Amino acid sequence: MKLKISQKELLKHINIAQKAVSSRTTIQILEGILFIAEENCLRLVATDLELIVDTRANCEIYEKGQIVINSSMIGNIIRKLPDADIYIEVDDNNINIKCLSTEFNIQGQDSNEFPSLPYIDKDVKLTLEQSELRDSIRKTSFATSMDQTRPDLTGVLFNIMNDRIEFVALDGYRVSLDCLSNVSEFEMKAIVPARALNEVYKILEEGEITLNIITGNIIFKLENTDVYSRLIDGQYIDYNQVMKQDFSTVVTIEKRALQMALERASLMAKEDKANLVKLDFSGNELHISSNTDIGKVDEYVKCEIGGEDLRIAFNAKYLLDGLKVIDDDDITLNMSGSLRPMVFKPLNDTNYTYLVLPVKLAGGNND
Amino acid sequence: MKLKISQKELLKHINIAQKAVSSRTTIQILEGILFIAEENCLRLVATDLELIVDTRANCEIYEKGQIVINSSMIGNIIRKLPDADIYIEVDDNNINIKCLSTEFNIQGQDSNEFPSLPYIDKDVKLTLEQSELRDSIRKTSFATSMDQTRPDLTGVLFNIMNDRIEFVALDGYRVSLDCLSNVSEFEMKAIVPARALNEVYKILEEGEITLNIITGNIIFKLENTDVYSRLIDGQYIDYNQVMKQDFSTVVTIEKRALQMALERASLMAKEDKANLVKLDFSGNELHISSNTDIGKVDEYVKCEIGGEDLRIAFNAKYLLDGLKVIDDDDITLNMSGSLRPMVFKPLNDTNYTYLVLPVKLAGGNND
Repeated sequence: MKLKISQKELLKHINIAQKAVSSRTTIQILEGILFIAEENCLRLVATDLELIVDTRANCEIYEKGQIVINSSMIGNIIRKLPDADIYIEVDDNNINIKCLSTEFNIQGQDSNEFPSLPYIDKDVKLTLEQSELRDSIRKTSFATSMDQTRPDLTGVLFNIMNDRIEFVALDGYRVSLDCLSNVSEFEMKAIVPARALNEVYKILEEGEITLNIITGNIIFKLENTDVYSRLIDGQYIDYNQVMKQDFSTVVTIEKRALQMALERASLMAKEDKANLVKLDFSGNELHISSNTDIGKVDEYVKCEIGGEDLRIAFNAKYLLDGLKVIDDDDITLNMSGSLRPMVFKPLNDTNYTYLVLPVKLAGGNND
Repeated sequence: MKLKISQKELLKHINIAQKAVSSRTTIQILEGILFIAEENCLRLVATDLELIVDTRANCEIYEKGQIVINSSMIGNIIRKLPDADIYIEVDDNNINIKCLSTEFNIQGQDSNEFPSLPYIDKDVKLTLEQSELRDSIRKTSFATSMDQTRPDLTGVLFNIMNDRIEFVALDGYRVSLDCLSNVSEFEMKAIVPARALNEVYKILEEGEITLNIITGNIIFKLENTDVYSRLIDGQYIDYNQVMKQDFSTVVTIEKRALQMALERASLMAKEDKANLVKLDFSGNELHISSNTDIGKVDEYVKCEIGGEDLRIAFNAKYLLDGLKVIDDDDITLNMSGSLRPMVFKPLNDTNYTYLVLPVKLAGGNND
């Protein structure tokens, strides 16, 4: 293996490949990146056995070959090299790296020890705008569960229908649902691990992305990079059932004012009290209050209330999580009594819905 | 106690006071900030018993008084409030904080429990530019020792002479010395804890600062803030003895090229090998090499060598620490054999000197 590559190009692709290198693996070869010098490019492949990143860098190849190089070592070396051409030559497992007046000699590992890439037939695919996918990941993945005993809830459901995709995340306390329209020509459900989505999120730029979904796997295909993730087995909860309700109280409120008031109120809400805030919708005002061992806080936010006045309590964190991902200035809060979920909808974006379960207060009806 | 203050002004002074609040104290009252409403200002005082910060905020006082408020709680509350007027009213230990449509009620602690400020007579003082002090702290405090069994080495010596101050830090492996001229009219030596200097460093801005030094204490007096620190007892090592030597090799080299080359070389120098790099000065070139279990690196840096060729070895970290604080483009490296210290001097800044002890290699003369 023998090649010339610019420092910037190599560093860019190392940074991408490192997203699939686990820092906590006990399998030594997985601490490495597989470098494959092919006809026209240098491929960098990394995996933690759940996620595979396969990225292709532009370079001049003088001799083809493969080698595995420790990810943090090669990253640190290339990061410190000047912005100039780098010459890499591999002889057996000895790697020689030259750049201007610098020369490194380090040991690599045999590429035969590296897990082989899955063979995947790529029949079922759809194409999205990267910016749209990024937005949908941001609006859903935070609401997945961390509880590994319910693996289906640790991922985001891609519910692909003939005319649209629904991205759904839920953890038993809230549901986050985002839709994209006019993107698919087939029907399929796939649960994608939140971990994979969070890494894909970081490498999304502009332009299009193609998703290939086959049994057990999804591949995110960007211009020079493919990210493979296993899918999560299991039946996803029927979230449509949860989302259906009639609302007896519909509130229109300024998002930022509500968010700021809740952030202040949650300062008083200690963790051991489940971060509890009380919301009192009455007249043309929302009164938020929290009363704990530390102290007491009262917040008043102007709003428009349609339907019945209502008193309802929540874990402030769940409310704030949803508010943080909404970009609109105004939202509606839709409720039907103090024991049923509250549904957030951005006023001008019908694609996004966030639902939170209330906390039942002692005394039953939250008085 | 009753007052009105702008959110920005209060937050600014809370941030300053928090520099003296230890997050690890076991004495509960020290987790608080003492608020003193005086005739014309609100004083905020915090201490960890080593360092005291006493800062004065502009506000309207309606009723004088004192209260201690938990530092992180009041910081979090004020940080989240909007940029508007804040009304604070204290009744017994109940603190009411109002800002627009927000109202907090929290408990404070009795100010009598808070340590009293030392009475300090302020006869011996000198005035510096804040920018000069900041620069001298940056160039010396990093070279203090962390070893609490040698307390004198955990601080920076302020060696005040009739015509100048020398700031000196040393830890047994290197000496960092910075001078300021024409600043004093008296002679005095004081060892100031590095911790205090690092906190003072963060609040320095433009303009002048006055230092008051009396037995056991130093006070840094800024426009609205006083920082008190205890001084460290003990006789400081006679560093002049160490600094005196004749040089048989004098090298002029570009600082940035040397720094980058050493940073790359130290990538190979594992911690268990004492971060060892070999420097070979010969011809018109410095050859830096490091050879460890991980791999081998060779770096070549152009330089001008006056006097004898020399081979010498160092802990790369100590070399880099000194290079990082030098702003000049070129420096001289002054040596007298492979077993005696190397002295760095910026080419155009005669005020700063950095000295590092070499590592003796097996074989005696570093061959």
